[in-house]
Amino acid sequence: MPGYQAPVDEAMFLLRDVFHIERYNNLPGFAEVTPDLIEAVLAEAAKFCEDVLTPLNRVGDKEGCHRHDDGSVATPTGFKDAYKRLTAGGWVGVSAPVEFGGQGLPVVLAQAVNEFLCSANMAFAMYPGLTQGAIAALLAHASLEQKALYLPKLVSGEWSGTMNLTEPQCGTDLGLVRTRAAPQADGSYKITGTKIFISAGEHDLVDNIIHLVLARIEGAPEGTRGISLFIVPKFLPAADGVRNAVSCGSLEEKMGIHGNATCVMNYDGATGWLMGEANRGLQAMFTMMNEARLGVGVQGLALSEVAYQNAALYAKERLAGRALSGAKFPQQPADPIIVHPDVRRMLMSIRAFNEAARALVTWIALKSDIAHRSADAKERQAAEDYLGLMTPVIKGVLTDQGFANTVMAQQVYGGHGYIAENGMEQFVRDARIAMMYEGANGIQALDLVGRKLPKDGGRALQAFFAEVSAHIKERGADKELTAYVTPLSQALGELQQATMWFLQNALGNPDQAGAGATDYMHLFGLVALGYMWCLIADAARSKAASADGVAERMTQRLTTGRFFMERMLPAATTHLARIKAGAGSVMALPTEAF
Amino acid sequence: MPGYQAPVDEAMFLLRDVFHIERYNNLPGFAEVTPDLIEAVLAEAAKFCEDVLTPLNRVGDKEGCHRHDDGSVATPTGFKDAYKRLTAGGWVGVSAPVEFGGQGLPVVLAQAVNEFLCSANMAFAMYPGLTQGAIAALLAHASLEQKALYLPKLVSGEWSGTMNLTEPQCGTDLGLVRTRAAPQADGSYKITGTKIFISAGEHDLVDNIIHLVLARIEGAPEGTRGISLFIVPKFLPAADGVRNAVSCGSLEEKMGIHGNATCVMNYDGATGWLMGEANRGLQAMFTMMNEARLGVGVQGLALSEVAYQNAALYAKERLAGRALSGAKFPQQPADPIIVHPDVRRMLMSIRAFNEAARALVTWIALKSDIAHRSADAKERQAAEDYLGLMTPVIKGVLTDQGFANTVMAQQVYGGHGYIAENGMEQFVRDARIAMMYEGANGIQALDLVGRKLPKDGGRALQAFFAEVSAHIKERGADKELTAYVTPLSQALGELQQATMWFLQNALGNPDQAGAGATDYMHLFGLVALGYMWCLIADAARSKAASADGVAERMTQRLTTGRFFMERMLPAATTHLARIKAGAGSVMALPTEAF
Repeated sequence: MPGYQAPVDEAMFLLRDVFHIERYNNLPGFAEVTPDLIEAVLAEAAKFCEDVLTPLNRVGDKEGCHRHDDGSVATPTGFKDAYKRLTAGGWVGVSAPVEFGGQGLPVVLAQAVNEFLCSANMAFAMYPGLTQGAIAALLAHASLEQKALYLPKLVSGEWSGTMNLTEPQCGTDLGLVRTRAAPQADGSYKITGTKIFISAGEHDLVDNIIHLVLARIEGAPEGTRGISLFIVPKFLPAADGVRNAVSCGSLEEKMGIHGNATCVMNYDGATGWLMGEANRGLQAMFTMMNEARLGVGVQGLALSEVAYQNAALYAKERLAGRALSGAKFPQQPADPIIVHPDVRRMLMSIRAFNEAARALVTWIALKSDIAHRSADAKERQAAEDYLGLMTPVIKGVLTDQGFANTVMAQQVYGGHGYIAENGMEQFVRDARIAMMYEGANGIQALDLVGRKLPKDGGRALQAFFAEVSAHIKERGADKELTAYVTPLSQALGELQQATMWFLQNALGNPDQAGAGATDYMHLFGLVALGYMWCLIADAARSKAASADGVAERMTQRLTTGRFFMERMLPAATTHLARIKAGAGSVMALPTEAF
Repeated sequence: MPGYQAPVDEAMFLLRDVFHIERYNNLPGFAEVTPDLIEAVLAEAAKFCEDVLTPLNRVGDKEGCHRHDDGSVATPTGFKDAYKRLTAGGWVGVSAPVEFGGQGLPVVLAQAVNEFLCSANMAFAMYPGLTQGAIAALLAHASLEQKALYLPKLVSGEWSGTMNLTEPQCGTDLGLVRTRAAPQADGSYKITGTKIFISAGEHDLVDNIIHLVLARIEGAPEGTRGISLFIVPKFLPAADGVRNAVSCGSLEEKMGIHGNATCVMNYDGATGWLMGEANRGLQAMFTMMNEARLGVGVQGLALSEVAYQNAALYAKERLAGRALSGAKFPQQPADPIIVHPDVRRMLMSIRAFNEAARALVTWIALKSDIAHRSADAKERQAAEDYLGLMTPVIKGVLTDQGFANTVMAQQVYGGHGYIAENGMEQFVRDARIAMMYEGANGIQALDLVGRKLPKDGGRALQAFFAEVSAHIKERGADKELTAYVTPLSQALGELQQATMWFLQNALGNPDQAGAGATDYMHLFGLVALGYMWCLIADAARSKAASADGVAERMTQRLTTGRFFMERMLPAATTHLARIKAGAGSVMALPTEAF
């Protein structure tokens, strides 16, 4: 069975040495969050994830969830107890406001905890994850009464939350939503319709489930402008807990995340309350999407990390063949497979991604904290710009590459990777969903190219380009950093060329942008990860010289960064070539040719 | 549930128009195999695959195989009946010699049938596939008596075969095999040991199972030079069918191919007979490996094809959003998703691979026929050179990319791709094994770089380079073909640079070759597929002009080929950059850093 050790040291290195969290002490609530406190929180989260959640990961996969005839759903053995410990630790409300019972800790810390949870047990982590999404929606859009009624129990984890968007006929295109909301005399609505793919839609971990449901008020306009967001609790808290007319019709049988209940939810005139403005439900969803998508990106990283750890262990233990340069352990019947360059190539590829991806998440989670907490409107706007721009990149690139990395880690095991008992194939199956839900990655690419690039006259993009360019200029002459800065400079140039190509070719023909969007997103991701490696190298170089016992680890980081620059960043060139090829051969065939 | 239509027209186009099978009429047995006969055989295979095997694919996945307490193994519902029809059609022995009851048809035809079988039901197709492997081994290495005893029933499909190589402590490194063979007075051996991952090791489709087992004769040298190959039948045919001391100890629970029984096989002093020379078992395995690996490459193509077909259908039916250039079907609530460039990008990527990969398999299968049948020793040698060189490329590239394509096809479905019922996730799970078994793809890359490139002074590689160069020279001035030939010329140049880099840098440090091997294999694959596209474009261009009703399809091929050249071949540049980065950062970290 696979193991897991939460990378607390990695998180601390990023927070302390790369992003200098002490510099954010001007933000409300940050001064109290000292590095020592952060380390203590992360160590506690690590312990919970390693000791409680990791052993349940395969159990959850094997058992899955079960729906009984009465519509109730049982989670796998051990999940209930683990959930109790989760709430006892206050982990559900780790970054929720103190006024509603949360710990009020920064998002940057919550995302680090989130990574540990997902590495240990992604299917389990989704239960509190969805609650956190519901909390964010309520905080942004609910009335004071609604907040007072729902938030304390969601924040404590006594209740859980869900997001009900998808219907059989529509997922991406929510303008096609058919679920109806009939206004009642008392100001409530009767909600009727069927929602599918509802994660944690029904389960036995909590006393009540608060569904946030997209529906169309009778007489509302067609399309996206007639969709409203409703709060539909399983039990009506204001009516002494009367059971609402919402139920789980069935569970989906799916590729992975078996421990999470993916429900078909039937609303049969269920009582609901409008949250926020009528007909503005989609906008309400969008304001909370950045954080949710950031969280899904973290799932990609999280599975890549746990898969890496197990592949590395296996590669050090499994004996086969001899090093090409001569036996390394002649006294053993064969060398461990980590001596083989191709095995190393796979392990290095994964770790070079993980370390930079974790930096990218940390950097952007900090932007989220600034956007929420800064007193300076300009600073808030700049942070929001980054958050908006980077969210599709993090969601799309970290889940695409995170999945590819689980496949690579599985490959290290050879045929043993295909055997369920070894757990590597579960990582692959679990990681796969992150590329599809919360907006399939093609949608992320379109969001980046079609919405985030042109937004506010390209302000966010220009700020990013300016920051990276400034770094290149500042560090370009530093000989110790040339191996990092020079390749980044080239990749940035390619990204700028790609951007220019869209400007010149896509305005009159949007298919030119659509055909290049996915490659642009990955090119963007490479530049962002490359920039992270430059920041890491900078910090590691300084610490390597400080000789306080960490020099070796710092040198390893510098080597891993060099691997990224030499072997991963060059893919930028191919992405640019594809973008420049345009939409011609992509769109030329008639539909019936497919 | 997914459907499947066997691409008979594609196979016929390749055989007739691209590779001009009538030019091979000098080979024994080819003259009788007229295009009309081929088309009839393929049409019959198609019908069997579409009507009988496709509906059983999901059944097999859901039910899996079951081992009873007595060690017997039941295959999924319907498999027995389907297997009866398979043998009645003579499909097991389709390319086996007529003298043993086979149909004696060319390998090129058998591989086309193999593709159909694997697309329809890979887990099922493995049963006859393993028998074909055993037939090939017996034909090459068994004594006349052994052939007479075993081949007729294997060829008819009354019996099936297996390959027993892997043991718990060794897979790739067969020098570590521990299974023992004790010589008996009657010339037989008593075989004792445990073999794992034995596909079709025990099942209920046949009367007898003939195991080919690698074991070490008592007193044999250590390592690979002390391994022999044995025939170990489940029932002893020469002893009135006495049950042999071989049994299935358990079935592996695995990621996919659930319909195929993957067994732990226990040999408890089982009676076996040496096949071929003592201590030359590994060499015997190697001589049949080319064909087996070619077959695994075909599995990658096969799953890519069936996944493509279903993704294309879904993309034409599923409604979401509007075309970027304005609604294509304003009367419908939304446009079908095939209007979106990113969906097209995915579909085009898969088909551009499939069409060229099928050509590559056809081309190399023809080489296999020449190698087996030609009367001209020089011609045989040239064909064997190609077969040896291209086998690791076909195995490694077609399975890596085939798997990636099943993931892409699943992505077209969005969240629905994650649902088991829709069948797309099964293709992903089934395709995954092909990258690992029959030599993990890292081993294929090493075989290519370490063994096949330098073999005979690089004779095979030089022949391939010369052929592609000659084609470029011959067609380079043809304006209609520039869009194909020019990019191929560039990619060939990059492959030649990579080869040169190995020559200059890896002789003194083999890690330099090891670190670049996988990229080299994929670079090689791109050039080979690009060359195939040039041949296809050439044929399609001629046929497009002939105006006999196929012009439209030919134009579509030309467009698909352009997509390959513009959007897939440019990855060659990245592979070259990675190769030239060398082993430095790959090997630098100490083992304990992982």
